[in-house]
Amino acid sequence: MANLPVNKAAHPFDKARFEAVLNRRFFYAPAFEIYGGVAGLYDYGPPGSSLQSNIISEWRKHFIVEEHMLEVDTTIMTPAPVFETSGHVARFADWMVKDLKNGEVLRADHLVKNVLEARLAGDKEARGLAAQPVKEDDKKKKKKDKAKPTAVKLSDEQVVEYETILAQLDNYSGPELGELCKKYNIRNPDTDNEVSEPVQFNLMFASSIGPTGQHPGFLRPETAQGHFLNFSRLLEFNNGRVPFASAQIGRSFRNEISPRAGLLRVREFTMAEIEHYVDPEDKKHERFAEVRDVELDLLDRDTQAAGSTKLTRMKIGDAVDKGIVANETLGYFLARIHQFLIKIGINPTRLRFRQHMGNEMAHYATDCWDAEIQNSYGWTECVGCADRAAYDLTVHMAKTGHPLVVRQALKEPIITEKLVAEFNKKNFGKTFGKDSAVIQTIIGGMDEALLAKLQGELAQGSATITSSDGREFKLTPDLLTIEKKTFKQSVREFTPNVIEPSFGLGRILYVLLEHSFWSREQDVERGVLSLPAVVAPTKVLIVPLSAKAEFDPLVREVSSKLRKAGIFSRVDDSNTSIGKRYARNDELGTPYGLTLDFASVQNRTMTLRERDTTGQLIGEIDEVIAAVTELVNGTIDWAEACRRLPAYDGVQAVE
Amino acid sequence: MANLPVNKAAHPFDKARFEAVLNRRFFYAPAFEIYGGVAGLYDYGPPGSSLQSNIISEWRKHFIVEEHMLEVDTTIMTPAPVFETSGHVARFADWMVKDLKNGEVLRADHLVKNVLEARLAGDKEARGLAAQPVKEDDKKKKKKDKAKPTAVKLSDEQVVEYETILAQLDNYSGPELGELCKKYNIRNPDTDNEVSEPVQFNLMFASSIGPTGQHPGFLRPETAQGHFLNFSRLLEFNNGRVPFASAQIGRSFRNEISPRAGLLRVREFTMAEIEHYVDPEDKKHERFAEVRDVELDLLDRDTQAAGSTKLTRMKIGDAVDKGIVANETLGYFLARIHQFLIKIGINPTRLRFRQHMGNEMAHYATDCWDAEIQNSYGWTECVGCADRAAYDLTVHMAKTGHPLVVRQALKEPIITEKLVAEFNKKNFGKTFGKDSAVIQTIIGGMDEALLAKLQGELAQGSATITSSDGREFKLTPDLLTIEKKTFKQSVREFTPNVIEPSFGLGRILYVLLEHSFWSREQDVERGVLSLPAVVAPTKVLIVPLSAKAEFDPLVREVSSKLRKAGIFSRVDDSNTSIGKRYARNDELGTPYGLTLDFASVQNRTMTLRERDTTGQLIGEIDEVIAAVTELVNGTIDWAEACRRLPAYDGVQAVE
Repeated sequence: MANLPVNKAAHPFDKARFEAVLNRRFFYAPAFEIYGGVAGLYDYGPPGSSLQSNIISEWRKHFIVEEHMLEVDTTIMTPAPVFETSGHVARFADWMVKDLKNGEVLRADHLVKNVLEARLAGDKEARGLAAQPVKEDDKKKKKKDKAKPTAVKLSDEQVVEYETILAQLDNYSGPELGELCKKYNIRNPDTDNEVSEPVQFNLMFASSIGPTGQHPGFLRPETAQGHFLNFSRLLEFNNGRVPFASAQIGRSFRNEISPRAGLLRVREFTMAEIEHYVDPEDKKHERFAEVRDVELDLLDRDTQAAGSTKLTRMKIGDAVDKGIVANETLGYFLARIHQFLIKIGINPTRLRFRQHMGNEMAHYATDCWDAEIQNSYGWTECVGCADRAAYDLTVHMAKTGHPLVVRQALKEPIITEKLVAEFNKKNFGKTFGKDSAVIQTIIGGMDEALLAKLQGELAQGSATITSSDGREFKLTPDLLTIEKKTFKQSVREFTPNVIEPSFGLGRILYVLLEHSFWSREQDVERGVLSLPAVVAPTKVLIVPLSAKAEFDPLVREVSSKLRKAGIFSRVDDSNTSIGKRYARNDELGTPYGLTLDFASVQNRTMTLRERDTTGQLIGEIDEVIAAVTELVNGTIDWAEACRRLPAYDGVQAVE
Repeated sequence: MANLPVNKAAHPFDKARFEAVLNRRFFYAPAFEIYGGVAGLYDYGPPGSSLQSNIISEWRKHFIVEEHMLEVDTTIMTPAPVFETSGHVARFADWMVKDLKNGEVLRADHLVKNVLEARLAGDKEARGLAAQPVKEDDKKKKKKDKAKPTAVKLSDEQVVEYETILAQLDNYSGPELGELCKKYNIRNPDTDNEVSEPVQFNLMFASSIGPTGQHPGFLRPETAQGHFLNFSRLLEFNNGRVPFASAQIGRSFRNEISPRAGLLRVREFTMAEIEHYVDPEDKKHERFAEVRDVELDLLDRDTQAAGSTKLTRMKIGDAVDKGIVANETLGYFLARIHQFLIKIGINPTRLRFRQHMGNEMAHYATDCWDAEIQNSYGWTECVGCADRAAYDLTVHMAKTGHPLVVRQALKEPIITEKLVAEFNKKNFGKTFGKDSAVIQTIIGGMDEALLAKLQGELAQGSATITSSDGREFKLTPDLLTIEKKTFKQSVREFTPNVIEPSFGLGRILYVLLEHSFWSREQDVERGVLSLPAVVAPTKVLIVPLSAKAEFDPLVREVSSKLRKAGIFSRVDDSNTSIGKRYARNDELGTPYGLTLDFASVQNRTMTLRERDTTGQLIGEIDEVIAAVTELVNGTIDWAEACRRLPAYDGVQAVE
């Protein structure tokens, strides 16, 4: 079924109404609201929780079940040595600046972005170009960190300079951001005070484990390390073979400097992460052919470096062939991420894949693409897909000594021949005494060519070698022999590389809600959330015309038949009009409604309402249940349902 | 289907083998194992994660879906003021003692328990009674905190004294535990050193929120506060009506003093909590009749106070009628908890409900019962079911001023008549000047009887009242009138009470594994986990006889048909014998196996193997899929499957 049968383009997105609906229907709300709240912490209410758990369930099917991934569930609390080794203690940080007078703390890159964007908007206004929407938007949101645009015209060179800086913003280091602030006189927009030099702030929440505080610990900022530390167990579980993937869904924490974009930048969030382990010499993917023709909108590194954000639409197969995407496995996951996001209802025209620039990449990554989704805050990273190479497994192995490697039996053992020196220890000791070890070390360090030369000289009677301190030693055939030996290697040992798709579920949930929201022309006050049935919190609403007892047996029958068909339904027998009950469920994203009225009791008929069109059909109870079951399971669409069941024309009378 | 078709009683529980299986099959393992681990933190591997997620999924169906609970998902990180109000900062603590010489920290109640139990065991040994198992057990486990029993005979009085203390152990306060240590010379069993007075240690992990450390915070030790803070939103979502329940599944954290019992005492754990809000004046439950006849093994407060642990088997209906269980709602949940635990495979003969004693109860509870499950560590609390009364909502409302109350329209308004004094302000001021306020306050504070007396005196001309400093004032009818007035109350406002069933999912998972484990007589080295299909990590194993390509289409066909039937299967095409593959899956708890051999390719037949009996049936592929689908869904049992399909007698040949 098409996700959006209604042309939503005709209904411009109204953020204030949207936020009012999410709040009124308790999709989510600031945590500890009655205590005044804390920035960056949100609670999900019943529809938000259901939506999240349906997204997770679909994610499990799409990735874990489909690809036989090994699921793990590891702890959030992590002892400090793990993150010291992984590099997070030293480098998992953002640059922040302080307002030099009032001490307010700001994220340096956000400050530069906001001020330069405001100046560009002010310039447009001064030039009499479409600056109006910016101002209005700004007024409505009253976002504290938004610099107010004032109508000041910039030089044409300045405009180009600012635009280039903004296109490359993610690529600046902290000191470079500091220089930008000085060069362009960037100040705290709230106070117009100067700001300090940028300093690093580590984003991990710290705590300590145990009653005597003996174990410093951190809350994980990603689930990944929990996978890596269990690598050798997982490999054994997979019978020692790569490639395979582990997967984990769970909470992570980042102590953001000043989180302000609702669910898009929070201090506690649910992630879903895959760590796919591959042979570094073979990053092909056996199912790549299945996705080769999937088309993606790409924004690669070079385009950004040239100061542009122009998208290139391309088949993933071509992108890999051309080397734009580094390898098949990375490409396979980009396509699968795309398919997943479309399936749950993300608007494909507002989805792009952006490659990280050099300085932007996390310390562990060698290549990285973000699935970015456009929404009212701009383009937001919702999924990262990084090639972490062998970084993590290598550092943990070096630190702990535990072998985090794959041992692979070679089909054909590798046979090599090498010259080897064998010493006559007795004669050697007699001749050189305590210098023996020095001489043997020198010979042990010789490459094939030097050994061949030595072998030749010995065949002619004697050879002379010189130690690093300049002493010369004469070697004769009674002291050593140099001969070809055959070596057979039957096992190859390697540290696998890791491709990591990492999903921020809260961000996906939020942009999905934005993409699904619109209002009916005839009733703009009431919102509709056109969530696909697969993720909708409730699939079917059962609406008895009145709370009269004579409806009870029918309500129970319909509920129970839906439950048997595996369809999650709810009954709304509240004491309001049917129209109000439907309107409430349009805001909750419930795709189908079943109405039981007095005709149902007499004739065993029932009406079926579709949320987006508000079209209604009528039929015998079991027929309607069969149709709605197929609609929810996606095996028929609404057009097909309309062919099966007659239209019900009592719509206006009821609503 | 009977959970355990095999008589497991014939196979004594072998803990060493059990632990080896859990470790070998990566059900779970110490977190950060390659870094040496940290006590009380565990990671779940693939079968553990699946088992946990199946338990959660069944929990959702049994509680949330069945009772239309409102699911929420709230943050773990919590600002300090919330837990200051809830009482956790002051009181969520355990008593710990320090070894006075080496500084080792011990939990006071555990120390007393271990030392006294060891002395009782030593006494039994000295008397020549069954002390042997204790010693052996002790040796095998090498648990650091287990005091070693030595064969010292105690007096009969001492034995009774120790046993009484142990039966009431949970009821001692910290100072009382300190007195017990002194009185009975209880020392650190590892060092024989004396220990300090018990001091309180708060079990919450502390952190701070934001870049300047301005918001101290804690990791939640339970999910409950997240429900309560959202109460008014949830109530509104439920159209303002009680009773209703919120539910949440999520991580919580407790910084245990010295966790040592595997998954039974951990520092980070997944809980499932229900907060059921009821009218304090009506704790009946509308579905109580459905569970009235469920029989539970109860251990009430009075029995424990009398120093006994004898169980009473009783219908929950009778227990509520007799006042042993405080009310229907509490009783309803005890029965539903019982049903849930049995359904997922807990052995009902090892499940009891123990009532908390007075001092043991959490600071917020008015009555509390624990579902305790017997396992190799003893009886372990796995579910708590507390009546928290109005405690939490009341304190948060008092602190924040936000109304956490239910406003209920009364069917019949309550009409009351009261005497009310009305003052003639002008005359009053003229007569009494600045004393007016004092006099009016005195009259305003009068109860109905005093007002009636005053009314009578005024009717006779005048009255005299005396202020607290002894001055007398004369009142006359021109100054005030006292008359009956009618008051109408049409809304009742109240703070609901909360009944809280709270599940420790890791504990349930662990005891379920213990209850499910046994070994076959013919092969004691190999374990079997008789997990019910409903929670088994994998339901069906597909075993192609060899990895030959000719099996591929059949394997794909069977996998795909099972997936369509909603059955989670795995293929094991590893390069080992079928017997070994089945043995591996017996240890993973996979209830059914489907074998594809050369006959399958020729005749389209397939064999079906049942894990516990190792019985095998044979049939046409679609017949076998139909049978295994019904077996997994629980609509037929193995006996019925044996009636439908002929036995396969090639068992020995294949295995």
